[in-house]
Amino acid sequence: MMASQDAVKTCRVLTAETIAKNLLNEVRDTLAKIQETGSGQPMLAAFLANGDPHAEKYAEWSKKTCEDNGFKFDLRNVEKEALEEEIMKANEEEEVDGIIVYYPIFPKNPSHDKYVQETVDLGKDVEGMRHQHLHNMYHNIRYLDPPENRKKSILPCTPLAVVKILEYLQIYNPVLAAGNRLYGKTITVINRSEVNGRPLAALLANDGATVYSVDITGVQLFTRGQGIKKVRHQVEDKEGWGLEQCLPISDVVISGVPTESYKVPTELIRDGAACINFSSYKNFDGPAIKEKAALYVPSVGKVTIAVLLRNLVRLIANRPAKKPADSGDIAQARNEAFADD
Amino acid sequence: MMASQDAVKTCRVLTAETIAKNLLNEVRDTLAKIQETGSGQPMLAAFLANGDPHAEKYAEWSKKTCEDNGFKFDLRNVEKEALEEEIMKANEEEEVDGIIVYYPIFPKNPSHDKYVQETVDLGKDVEGMRHQHLHNMYHNIRYLDPPENRKKSILPCTPLAVVKILEYLQIYNPVLAAGNRLYGKTITVINRSEVNGRPLAALLANDGATVYSVDITGVQLFTRGQGIKKVRHQVEDKEGWGLEQCLPISDVVISGVPTESYKVPTELIRDGAACINFSSYKNFDGPAIKEKAALYVPSVGKVTIAVLLRNLVRLIANRPAKKPADSGDIAQARNEAFADD
Repeated sequence: MMASQDAVKTCRVLTAETIAKNLLNEVRDTLAKIQETGSGQPMLAAFLANGDPHAEKYAEWSKKTCEDNGFKFDLRNVEKEALEEEIMKANEEEEVDGIIVYYPIFPKNPSHDKYVQETVDLGKDVEGMRHQHLHNMYHNIRYLDPPENRKKSILPCTPLAVVKILEYLQIYNPVLAAGNRLYGKTITVINRSEVNGRPLAALLANDGATVYSVDITGVQLFTRGQGIKKVRHQVEDKEGWGLEQCLPISDVVISGVPTESYKVPTELIRDGAACINFSSYKNFDGPAIKEKAALYVPSVGKVTIAVLLRNLVRLIANRPAKKPADSGDIAQARNEAFADD
Repeated sequence: MMASQDAVKTCRVLTAETIAKNLLNEVRDTLAKIQETGSGQPMLAAFLANGDPHAEKYAEWSKKTCEDNGFKFDLRNVEKEALEEEIMKANEEEEVDGIIVYYPIFPKNPSHDKYVQETVDLGKDVEGMRHQHLHNMYHNIRYLDPPENRKKSILPCTPLAVVKILEYLQIYNPVLAAGNRLYGKTITVINRSEVNGRPLAALLANDGATVYSVDITGVQLFTRGQGIKKVRHQVEDKEGWGLEQCLPISDVVISGVPTESYKVPTELIRDGAACINFSSYKNFDGPAIKEKAALYVPSVGKVTIAVLLRNLVRLIANRPAKKPADSGDIAQARNEAFADD
């Protein structure tokens, strides 16, 4: 007989830190294998041009994570109007391995931000924001160089961070074939921004899930069709649907609404669901959700930074080795980097 | 002594039709010179995916202008969600010489429209909307293939139509060196959209003008600096400025506000100005503006369609000739196409 006065805790809360630690171990191991002798620490150039204190804070964390894990982080504060030229310079600098830009730069003009994103060299696009990377992601194409298939396409950091969390939570079922490991799972994603929510819904559906993508304009269903027979997801409007329809049938609820006041209605979530918050605000009511969910991940930021470094190592692995003496072993290690993806 | 009871009319009103006619003559002549023997009519594939009746109307006009001038126009009605795949097919079709898409497709999501634009093959981007074309325009780079400089970069249609109108109105001064022909002119552009107003302000400033770019968020000054010493325009915020400051000092007023109710305040426009409306609504008060302006162009739509065909011929001129027998003369004609730009 249990002596505790408390009810048994049924919800397991997992922090981003725990999950990030695993990923960072893998990143460091892989980096050690693919680096050529005598090469220095890889360098990430980060551009801050919006004066956003949240972005500055995030940049500080990123710098610390970089330095703790054997990477250089070069924060460059630039004027908005000079940003394009500064990115073009970094594209040419041999010591820069990857480029990150803190968006939004022009919050009233998302098309201008897209224009800036397209300026980053494809081989340094650590955020996976270039059109070719996004196109491959939406089309479920894993490589940049078919038919050789040696260069992996880069996936955007926050969506990939959520995928890595779902793998850690074993919602990806490793018994199923790679690429189909979410088959049978129903997932609601609240937020359909071009940067996070829409790519995330596409990635999860491409991996076999039935995904309800919800934003203020309505609900869209992302799936690979009956029996996941299609090679990539299709999108369908769900007229008249809302959270009332989506949440009670969802195994997983992922929310990324960027406002402080927004809360996912706990009463609609099914018992034993997995809940993940990727907003910088708390989209779930913490005490209440722990009475309903089986798994709860309150934030993803640290996993996103780990994925950023993982992408950086991926970009290095995509490049041909420079020194002929090293090239045999290094080339093989580069081909094998993150082979489980 | 004049017998007329009317005041002498001091404002010359020029229609888009008159200006377009000139351009279409040049387009037909150039096409005849650069076409290889036995090649059929060039074909423009146009994608309509938004069900917008304005776009349908515009497509009808475009079709008529195409067919009257020796071009094929293939209107393709597709579902929004299928648009990307349909564009990819057209990229591969040898008989398609240029691709146009009627935007907005996702009016609430301009980033998604940018994603779709980037899908069009660079060699078929008749609208000049691909990042490389826009990048060259903003940087005042005329060619896609330095240092050979045989492939001209494509400029976006509406901004280029306004440039062609300003040339027709002799506001571009042919006595000055090409590239500097707006030096000394002050121009206000009302609208700073990513598709029209901002590229237009950049093009005019790159050609030497002092440009005030005005939208609801404020005024920006686009210039090549004192003595137009810089190779391309710089942008500077004009805090506290509004139309009250810009219009009285502007030789040219260009407006493209996409709302029916908006009117440029006539009383602020200087006597003898040139006024051009590129909105599909009438941004100038017709009777009043004719008492104030020296030159007035009430719409640009037909010039835009002429420029679209001009861009299509430019794309064909950019391609290497296929038949060895023709290649000498054709190659020369292709290099010389629209040589005055």
